[in-house]
Amino acid sequence: MGEKYQRLAAHLAEVHNLSISYRILMWDQQVNMPSAGAGARAAQMATISRLRHEFLTSDTTARLLEGAAREVEGAPFDSDEASLIRVARREYDLALKHSADFVARLAQAKNLATTVWARARANNDFKSFQPTLERLIDLKIEEAEQLGYPGHPYDALLEQSEPGMTTAQVKAVFDGHQPHLIALTAAVRKQVGKVSDASVHQHFDIEKQREFGLSISQAFGFDYKRGRLDTSVHPFELQFSRDDVRLTTRYREDFLNPALFGTLHETGHGLHAQGFGTSVEGTYLSDLDASSGAVAESQSRMWENVVGRSRDFWQWAYPKLKGTFPAQLANVDVDAFYRAINTVRRQFIRVEADEATYNLHIVLRFGLELELVTGKLKVADLPAAWNSRFEQLFGIVPPTDKEGVLQDIHWSQGSFGYFPSYALGNLLSVQFFNKAVQDAPSISDEITRGKFDTLLNWATTNLYRHGRKFTVDELVHRVTGNSIQWQPYVAYLEAKFKDIYGL
Amino acid sequence: MGEKYQRLAAHLAEVHNLSISYRILMWDQQVNMPSAGAGARAAQMATISRLRHEFLTSDTTARLLEGAAREVEGAPFDSDEASLIRVARREYDLALKHSADFVARLAQAKNLATTVWARARANNDFKSFQPTLERLIDLKIEEAEQLGYPGHPYDALLEQSEPGMTTAQVKAVFDGHQPHLIALTAAVRKQVGKVSDASVHQHFDIEKQREFGLSISQAFGFDYKRGRLDTSVHPFELQFSRDDVRLTTRYREDFLNPALFGTLHETGHGLHAQGFGTSVEGTYLSDLDASSGAVAESQSRMWENVVGRSRDFWQWAYPKLKGTFPAQLANVDVDAFYRAINTVRRQFIRVEADEATYNLHIVLRFGLELELVTGKLKVADLPAAWNSRFEQLFGIVPPTDKEGVLQDIHWSQGSFGYFPSYALGNLLSVQFFNKAVQDAPSISDEITRGKFDTLLNWATTNLYRHGRKFTVDELVHRVTGNSIQWQPYVAYLEAKFKDIYGL
Repeated sequence: MGEKYQRLAAHLAEVHNLSISYRILMWDQQVNMPSAGAGARAAQMATISRLRHEFLTSDTTARLLEGAAREVEGAPFDSDEASLIRVARREYDLALKHSADFVARLAQAKNLATTVWARARANNDFKSFQPTLERLIDLKIEEAEQLGYPGHPYDALLEQSEPGMTTAQVKAVFDGHQPHLIALTAAVRKQVGKVSDASVHQHFDIEKQREFGLSISQAFGFDYKRGRLDTSVHPFELQFSRDDVRLTTRYREDFLNPALFGTLHETGHGLHAQGFGTSVEGTYLSDLDASSGAVAESQSRMWENVVGRSRDFWQWAYPKLKGTFPAQLANVDVDAFYRAINTVRRQFIRVEADEATYNLHIVLRFGLELELVTGKLKVADLPAAWNSRFEQLFGIVPPTDKEGVLQDIHWSQGSFGYFPSYALGNLLSVQFFNKAVQDAPSISDEITRGKFDTLLNWATTNLYRHGRKFTVDELVHRVTGNSIQWQPYVAYLEAKFKDIYGL
Repeated sequence: MGEKYQRLAAHLAEVHNLSISYRILMWDQQVNMPSAGAGARAAQMATISRLRHEFLTSDTTARLLEGAAREVEGAPFDSDEASLIRVARREYDLALKHSADFVARLAQAKNLATTVWARARANNDFKSFQPTLERLIDLKIEEAEQLGYPGHPYDALLEQSEPGMTTAQVKAVFDGHQPHLIALTAAVRKQVGKVSDASVHQHFDIEKQREFGLSISQAFGFDYKRGRLDTSVHPFELQFSRDDVRLTTRYREDFLNPALFGTLHETGHGLHAQGFGTSVEGTYLSDLDASSGAVAESQSRMWENVVGRSRDFWQWAYPKLKGTFPAQLANVDVDAFYRAINTVRRQFIRVEADEATYNLHIVLRFGLELELVTGKLKVADLPAAWNSRFEQLFGIVPPTDKEGVLQDIHWSQGSFGYFPSYALGNLLSVQFFNKAVQDAPSISDEITRGKFDTLLNWATTNLYRHGRKFTVDELVHRVTGNSIQWQPYVAYLEAKFKDIYGL
């Protein structure tokens, strides 16, 4: 490595340190901060965020990027050197297109919007949120124009969470699997009496839930010497380094699923974060939380669902769970429990959706976002559009906007273009898992015995160690030889739910 | 306020936000971080620290300071405006004298030194620490030369923790009360059998200790909606804003004092931090942890000792403590308990010292530091010098360097010139408390009834609300009309221990 490259790497490591400092402030805000501290914390975070933007868009970055790029010319695409330059250049270009004035106006609008949205949702009063949302969408349209886009304005927004993905690609994938999901959920609906989830709706001691979640998380391979699990209102994972990864979850005394599957979900993110290669650690490439949302979600979902809600897994885990909650589960056999945790329900709230219906919630939001950013759909007409499309997809209509258009925080935070990553993550979770099993067929049998290291090693070698070198498209091609495909996911869902519901 | 002043205030608020961000990273490091995260955390903190220094020493600061100073010329000395300019100018000048190269060299030396010191202390092996300490002292001498000083090189080091204080002032105060402390402890020594502290050395359930500590802390007036109490290896207080103040303590199952008085000590700091005026909050003046160490320590000591170890206080608190630990304290009356927590012991370890001996530990360190920074005392001769002066002051000799010269972390962190603040804080705790009682004579009686608001209001009005507008000398003159005095402290100690030991 030449001297210019070294200097670039050191400079970008400082940008990275600011990103992580921001996240430490955010973690503390969610986990520890007394709510009275919110005002000062917002100011502290704004300073860090502004400095990071200044640092990244400085002339120094441009100069060092240019010099270093010449120095490492010809380095292989997947080398640390070529990857650092590729990723940094993309983010530098993107950041440069955001004027400081625009960043400030958007930050201000977002700040106000989240409070207005929270009140509107509490009061089920969309009208009070409408002008705020209009303003935010105007800003996102302005942003798209500033950033530029090859085809659809939405491309510009998508580029920020999924570099290289286009609206057309996402649309093709969504259009492809939507009818299959509708058909599958319709078929399940006819068999609705066949499965009961009463067993997971009982009283479960929180301390025992926590211990059980920790034990599974450790069995998966999460290293608690290099991370921790805390409690927060909204569960999340944050990576401060590959050796300091924070998971949070939340507990309900009357419902087993949220903490159990929440912990497995965040553990998936955590395994990803702890698996970063040591040559990547501390560099600009070592930031899970800034990498592709779809890749990140593919790993939370793989461990939560493809492993954690599988029959194979519960062969091993159920006796342990039953040992933890002997009274509650006395009359529930492993098959009944497996069906209980995989109950399919038409419900209004995305974050509570089962595997079979989840992506339909995203299809809905994607369609609406597309039309909002072209102005085809007016914000005033959004609740009606939400409800009528919800009916098309699910056959039911949300009784209130609170359970409909007002449910998600994302739009109030100016986040348009992120929802697709959730659905793409689901598709990828199956594509990657299938490839892992193809490469190492013993994985399925190992899971029935509580062994996860072959799968974890596969994922570390093929996915985690790269940090954020690759876009989702680059990674999925590299690993599977293919682009993102919906067919494996549909095949997985059909096989699983046809079995559970005896279709 | 003019436009230039506004811009200066906004600029300095960003410096302040970086200081606080640094502290949030530090708090997390002490309270939550898995130890594997240490390497990355050091890098993150180094980035924030470097940026803060750059920001503060930027031409922008100089330009804004100059413009704003002209704008607010004639503002009263204690106004927010004049104070901001005074404090910022002092710190700007000081920071500017530290070259970036020197800051980097010192940071590197400190980083290595703390590890070397920890190992040397564990192995009771001063020789292995000696070259490192020599290097650090060379750097501190270089720093003193860079900063410049009116009389003694130690002035330059003192200026950083106690702006405006000189070595001569500190020496006069220390020389003044040293013989009185020696005489007092010698007199006590003859009565050593009169007081037993066996009652605080029993088994005390940690959860109950925590609850009791919290209840006293709340009774003092600490607002847990604007703060929290956690556990850490080394207890401390950090202020993220007046509305988010973090206390930590540590518990010993077999000894009541550390957590109890530790909590009251940090509560004192916390009340100070929560009492900052709202006009000061969020500005460069709102940083307790960067203000005078002596003022800060005066408040931790006032609440811990002058209140928390007083007979008045335990009239009210002892029945509650007895209710919490009925078995342990069944045969201990309030008078015996009061004597137990005020037992005077000759001991080697400063942080475990009682009120009567504490300042002698500081006198020792101050004398050694003075001679180290002039080169009069060589590091090779330091252990012998420590031991012989310890014997002069206490009449005993530490059996090992571990209990002697190696006991404190300070020197390994390049902290020379801070120790005096601890002793000055003790003196001030009594000066301020006496003034409070003089202004509001009901305070003593109120304390026997568990009422602390008159004292807290006095301290908030006279001390806390100012943030860090004033140096210790400015503040003590403003409040008491006098400079720092040792006589009230000696009078307080003599009255207290003559009573306890029946001298």
